[in-house]
Amino acid sequence: MANCIVAQSGGPSSVINATLAGIVKANQLNPIYDHVYGGLNGIEGILSERFVDLTKMTEHENQVLRQTPSSALGSCRYKLQRDHKADFEKIFEVMEKYDAVTMFYIGGNDSMDTVAALSEYAKKHGISNRRFIGCPKTIDNDLMGTDHAPGFGSAAKFIATTLWQCWQDINVYPDSRKEVFIMETMGRDAGWLAASACLSGVVDVLVMPEPVFDKEEVLARIDACVKEKAKCFVVISEGAHYADGTYIAAADIGNDLFGHAVLGGAGRALEKMILDSGVCPRCKVMNLSTSQRSHATEQSLTDVTESFRLGLSAHMHSSDPSFTGKMIALRRRTDVEEYDVEYFTLEADSVANFVRNFPMEWLLDDYRGITQEAIDYMKPLIQGSPQILMKDGLPEHTVPYYMGNQEIEKK
Amino acid sequence: MANCIVAQSGGPSSVINATLAGIVKANQLNPIYDHVYGGLNGIEGILSERFVDLTKMTEHENQVLRQTPSSALGSCRYKLQRDHKADFEKIFEVMEKYDAVTMFYIGGNDSMDTVAALSEYAKKHGISNRRFIGCPKTIDNDLMGTDHAPGFGSAAKFIATTLWQCWQDINVYPDSRKEVFIMETMGRDAGWLAASACLSGVVDVLVMPEPVFDKEEVLARIDACVKEKAKCFVVISEGAHYADGTYIAAADIGNDLFGHAVLGGAGRALEKMILDSGVCPRCKVMNLSTSQRSHATEQSLTDVTESFRLGLSAHMHSSDPSFTGKMIALRRRTDVEEYDVEYFTLEADSVANFVRNFPMEWLLDDYRGITQEAIDYMKPLIQGSPQILMKDGLPEHTVPYYMGNQEIEKK
Repeated sequence: MANCIVAQSGGPSSVINATLAGIVKANQLNPIYDHVYGGLNGIEGILSERFVDLTKMTEHENQVLRQTPSSALGSCRYKLQRDHKADFEKIFEVMEKYDAVTMFYIGGNDSMDTVAALSEYAKKHGISNRRFIGCPKTIDNDLMGTDHAPGFGSAAKFIATTLWQCWQDINVYPDSRKEVFIMETMGRDAGWLAASACLSGVVDVLVMPEPVFDKEEVLARIDACVKEKAKCFVVISEGAHYADGTYIAAADIGNDLFGHAVLGGAGRALEKMILDSGVCPRCKVMNLSTSQRSHATEQSLTDVTESFRLGLSAHMHSSDPSFTGKMIALRRRTDVEEYDVEYFTLEADSVANFVRNFPMEWLLDDYRGITQEAIDYMKPLIQGSPQILMKDGLPEHTVPYYMGNQEIEKK
Repeated sequence: MANCIVAQSGGPSSVINATLAGIVKANQLNPIYDHVYGGLNGIEGILSERFVDLTKMTEHENQVLRQTPSSALGSCRYKLQRDHKADFEKIFEVMEKYDAVTMFYIGGNDSMDTVAALSEYAKKHGISNRRFIGCPKTIDNDLMGTDHAPGFGSAAKFIATTLWQCWQDINVYPDSRKEVFIMETMGRDAGWLAASACLSGVVDVLVMPEPVFDKEEVLARIDACVKEKAKCFVVISEGAHYADGTYIAAADIGNDLFGHAVLGGAGRALEKMILDSGVCPRCKVMNLSTSQRSHATEQSLTDVTESFRLGLSAHMHSSDPSFTGKMIALRRRTDVEEYDVEYFTLEADSVANFVRNFPMEWLLDDYRGITQEAIDYMKPLIQGSPQILMKDGLPEHTVPYYMGNQEIEKK
């Protein structure tokens, strides 16, 4: 027998640990590996031989791990470069030393590139006893090849829920006072997260990164809405940008303000435009920031279940020694009426370095939101609420890395 | 028989509707009123005779109401002035016309003043058949006389949970990169909400409104923290202010920036100080904004139960025709080991127009957080999670007013 390594990379999500929990659980159901080693801080931990042993995790620990946000093994920003030969050599050396035949890498775009690069390297150097398997995750939902990415459903649920509740709050006063409420979401250059706010049914104006931002048009739309019903609910993606690619945040709240462009969000930039133009004298901006990718107490049951099972599937596939350079993906079943997914595999390099944008044909004209087809696509992904284990009034979360699980001794 | 009126006022909370639900339910258990009329938009709705009839609410509607954030009957900003005789006359005229012998007013400070003013007026004019009863609510927890205010526990739970989850997120990367994470909370001039973040156990620096803000001291403390462990978690109350009473937001992000002081939050003002001083090159600011008072999907079960029962208690007390000008309050039981409350009553005018600050003796030196005594006070208030009814992946919320419950015909 031999061992396997699991590591996580990229920005965290509410359910990335559920995939990790799935891999660990699968090996308890069918112990094809002697040890499941968790590599700390992604590829960095593998390069520096920092591992925890996850093999004997209890069911309770596994359950807590599934409801823990962020990356329990830590993440990294280190991107493996194909021309850094030393890194590749080191990784194979470490895998040999720890007798690890399989590496599972849970992450987004860049992580799939790492999986592709490592399996290419193995092939090129005639190394046939190491395999690399990618498990997708990203709240941004911008991965190619898979129907949707684990992590998106939970973030979408939190975003739509929060907007729906804020809408109730903002609407408690008699209607005469004009106010624009702006919610900014993450998502980088893909508008999926911003669009998911439309599941709440209360979005008046949706500003996405996919169509070019036209200031006059957006202000005109907000103006019309405020005139019609005093209150206007705007959702804006952090990636909203002008025709030349400049982000609206950078363009309007520039370095001259605080000396640091990172301070300006798209929401605040839009607020400034609204106030300056006189469209509305009052705005409130809410930027969900980190909470939208870490609010695991409101995971979507569908999302967390799919993520866990994706880990099971990855482990199962890994029993085939020739299975390498692949990513496990989700496909919506078409043979049944109800929503269900099936798991399939595709080449990691067909996913790496591509971005799947929100389809333009799913956008309504005039920034009015999204089509019924888009709603129908997203709605199944936010269904259900898992039972969350609580401790002392707060959700129980485990972080093997930061909570001091003993690292194994270096070999 | 006769009728009663219930209305809500002030800023919404996650559980203010639970008190309303309690009053409605109590009247179904013991129908001492023919009709329970909901006054829309607080005192404004009473003045303009806008009512919905809540008497026959079903158990399902009641349950959904209990988990609905914001004020289901709408709120108002209108403050009854003691010298506006016409308003008083109109209210008594409306009560007579609708045969309402009791008015329940659910709200904060100002609402208790309204209750006191109306009962004083009745007394002064020899009106003995109208009674006014206050039901406290405020996420700020700044009401005198009651051990705590309904609404605080749920907001505290959401704040502590969110910070605990963001902490996990921010800590996923290897520790070398310096970063300050700032969370801003509501609470106005009382620091209870900011302090509640300490229930998470991850607050490094706590900036409250109660002690005067000393920029140098706060920056020195953050500096020491960043030097010690790279990451620093700061929680700041929106009410943090200098010795002369100037809010730090107003002082540092003034009109000169956007021409509108409302844009600057305390968190962003502190961020600017940190960046300008060079204490840390990287900050992230999260302002929970409206979500902290409306995130009812994470109500504290203790809080929502107490709020509901407070409604029951108010209704029960109201069967006594001489019971007027009072507020129902909570007292912690001292005759049992476990946490429990009892309900008692006090004069509304002993609550109105006072603010209960966070006790200075519950603050640790050097902005390091709060004492164990403070933790022990708050911890019971965030316990338990109610079962939330969901619909299509989102929480089911009812808003009789905005969702179009038929207003009754004016008499």
